[in-house]
Amino acid sequence: MKKVKHGGNIYEIAEKLGIQKEEIIDFSANINPLGVPINFKKALIENIDRIENYPDPEYNGLIQAIAKEHHINREYITVGNGATEVIFSMIASLKPKKSMILAPTFGEYERALMRAGSQVEYFHLKEENDFQVDDDILKTIDESFDLVILCNPNNPTSQMVENKRLIKILKHCEKNHVHLMMDEAFIDFVDEPTKETMLPYIMNYHNLIIVKALTKFYALPGLRIGYGITSNVRLLERVNDHKEPWTINSYAAMAGMVFKDKIYREKSREWITSERKDFFDELKKINKIKVYKPNGNYILFKLLEERKDLREVLLKKKILIRSCSNYKNLDESFYRIAIKDKGLNKLFAKALKEVLYES
Amino acid sequence: MKKVKHGGNIYEIAEKLGIQKEEIIDFSANINPLGVPINFKKALIENIDRIENYPDPEYNGLIQAIAKEHHINREYITVGNGATEVIFSMIASLKPKKSMILAPTFGEYERALMRAGSQVEYFHLKEENDFQVDDDILKTIDESFDLVILCNPNNPTSQMVENKRLIKILKHCEKNHVHLMMDEAFIDFVDEPTKETMLPYIMNYHNLIIVKALTKFYALPGLRIGYGITSNVRLLERVNDHKEPWTINSYAAMAGMVFKDKIYREKSREWITSERKDFFDELKKINKIKVYKPNGNYILFKLLEERKDLREVLLKKKILIRSCSNYKNLDESFYRIAIKDKGLNKLFAKALKEVLYES
Repeated sequence: MKKVKHGGNIYEIAEKLGIQKEEIIDFSANINPLGVPINFKKALIENIDRIENYPDPEYNGLIQAIAKEHHINREYITVGNGATEVIFSMIASLKPKKSMILAPTFGEYERALMRAGSQVEYFHLKEENDFQVDDDILKTIDESFDLVILCNPNNPTSQMVENKRLIKILKHCEKNHVHLMMDEAFIDFVDEPTKETMLPYIMNYHNLIIVKALTKFYALPGLRIGYGITSNVRLLERVNDHKEPWTINSYAAMAGMVFKDKIYREKSREWITSERKDFFDELKKINKIKVYKPNGNYILFKLLEERKDLREVLLKKKILIRSCSNYKNLDESFYRIAIKDKGLNKLFAKALKEVLYES
Repeated sequence: MKKVKHGGNIYEIAEKLGIQKEEIIDFSANINPLGVPINFKKALIENIDRIENYPDPEYNGLIQAIAKEHHINREYITVGNGATEVIFSMIASLKPKKSMILAPTFGEYERALMRAGSQVEYFHLKEENDFQVDDDILKTIDESFDLVILCNPNNPTSQMVENKRLIKILKHCEKNHVHLMMDEAFIDFVDEPTKETMLPYIMNYHNLIIVKALTKFYALPGLRIGYGITSNVRLLERVNDHKEPWTINSYAAMAGMVFKDKIYREKSREWITSERKDFFDELKKINKIKVYKPNGNYILFKLLEERKDLREVLLKKKILIRSCSNYKNLDESFYRIAIKDKGLNKLFAKALKEVLYES
């Protein structure tokens, strides 16, 4: 169960290149370019001494804010050190014997499953089908499975499972006594989050677990704050019994206030809607790559010509992209890039064209 | 493996009493009353945007600072979300079949051992011996054990294992192929930390694991930062493979700079040396309690008269103390209190006398 290489390791790259990490334009991590919400930043500074005390071990304020935001019973919520802790502790508590994940998908599901001793099966997404989840998944899920994990939109493909299909999958899982874990870490970025989220099914489907994070949409990856929602309260009890104490720091425990920042949310919606379309349109013009229509705040593309040095050549221009060669069912011709602000997206498209056509 | 109740839950108490948590004088959590070092506080504010990026997944800067502070090879260090994560991940990686912990001691060792499926044996510290570890421990440790955990000074007794005895225990453990985990979370508070720490034995004893935290001495419990040291690099590899990514937040990753704050350290040494003696002397005068001579920044005492309402009566005076009734081998007549600044210590002694002699 070796460590997974993720995007965003600008520290190692900067050291290798002998430059400051601030000089790198990081397209490898999928973070809202609007930065930390200003009201939250102010609150942090005003409460800078808060780390002198242990955080509330029950994280009541935070859980209350999440419950209010999603109109969900607070008994259905658990919080964690990033979505990652929630994923690991849910899986450790479920103790699945056999689980299914997508290929490709976020690498930590597999690590968490292996750590819990689960057998892992892969639902291979088809390249010719643009890595969409199709109805074949229903044929694959049977009673022999304990857990299915779907990331929606999926990382790194930026593809959504259609809501109607998701509901079919959820019902099929319920019938077969299979838990369905939905990782919605990127769902706030999609066109219509409220239509796509599975939150409305929490009450009636005890086999449903939803994992969310404040990391991506509110640009707080370094704060470490995620949460899980399920109406399976016995599972949540096990999760809470299993948890290490105080895994969420005192500043992260304050993060519930970001939900109130309506202006930040509107600005973020405006940015993602316009930039996703424009960046995709721009990249589509480049005929040496295939670009998959994105739903999240990141784009998967495939390089259509044989060359292995794309990441390195872009790095010379201080642009960092995520090679997808270590994802199952992808290879070194695939790359993931974040959608950033208009200026940087243009700069990227230009740099990519230079590299592909001038060298 | 239910959750352990710890000191310091002023959130729950404040809500119950219907008061602000700032109104409570919290003697239940053992934190340096000098507060967050001022230079670190300034650095936090200057770097408030740092949470916009993922922390360095390798935490190189932090590990380097720890290595420099202790003159230890950086390959021997792992960092965690508080000492707790280090304790849990070390134990999960060691997979001990049979382990020994003190009774009483910090409650999370037992939880971590149970989570790892270890059988847990208790070395019962004797009240008549002031809860000191004596040579009987050598007779108890044999080849059937995989791990012994000692907290030094011990929590909640504030008692030290004499250095000479510790070395005997370490050698005895080595001979019997038993790992020895030393939790030194409170060692910076003792009279001569450099004489008491087991750090000098790290190089030559691969069975030795030392756990430390920045929580207590630098008043950063809400930041969540601890570390583990061992020259058993294969164990550290397993720990790192087992770890969830990014468990340490971006602010905590900056905490290595506190080591440089010589003035804070000197002031803290002055405070603890003088207040520990004065507070102990003051409490010793109260003949309705037995006070155990403290070595850490906290004091264990036993109430010598039959009454069960001490904590509640003090709470009416907005003073929170830690009942030790949930520690193995202690009962509801034992309490732990933190050593705070002179004014608060006096206030506490006065309040305790009032409660014991006037009611």
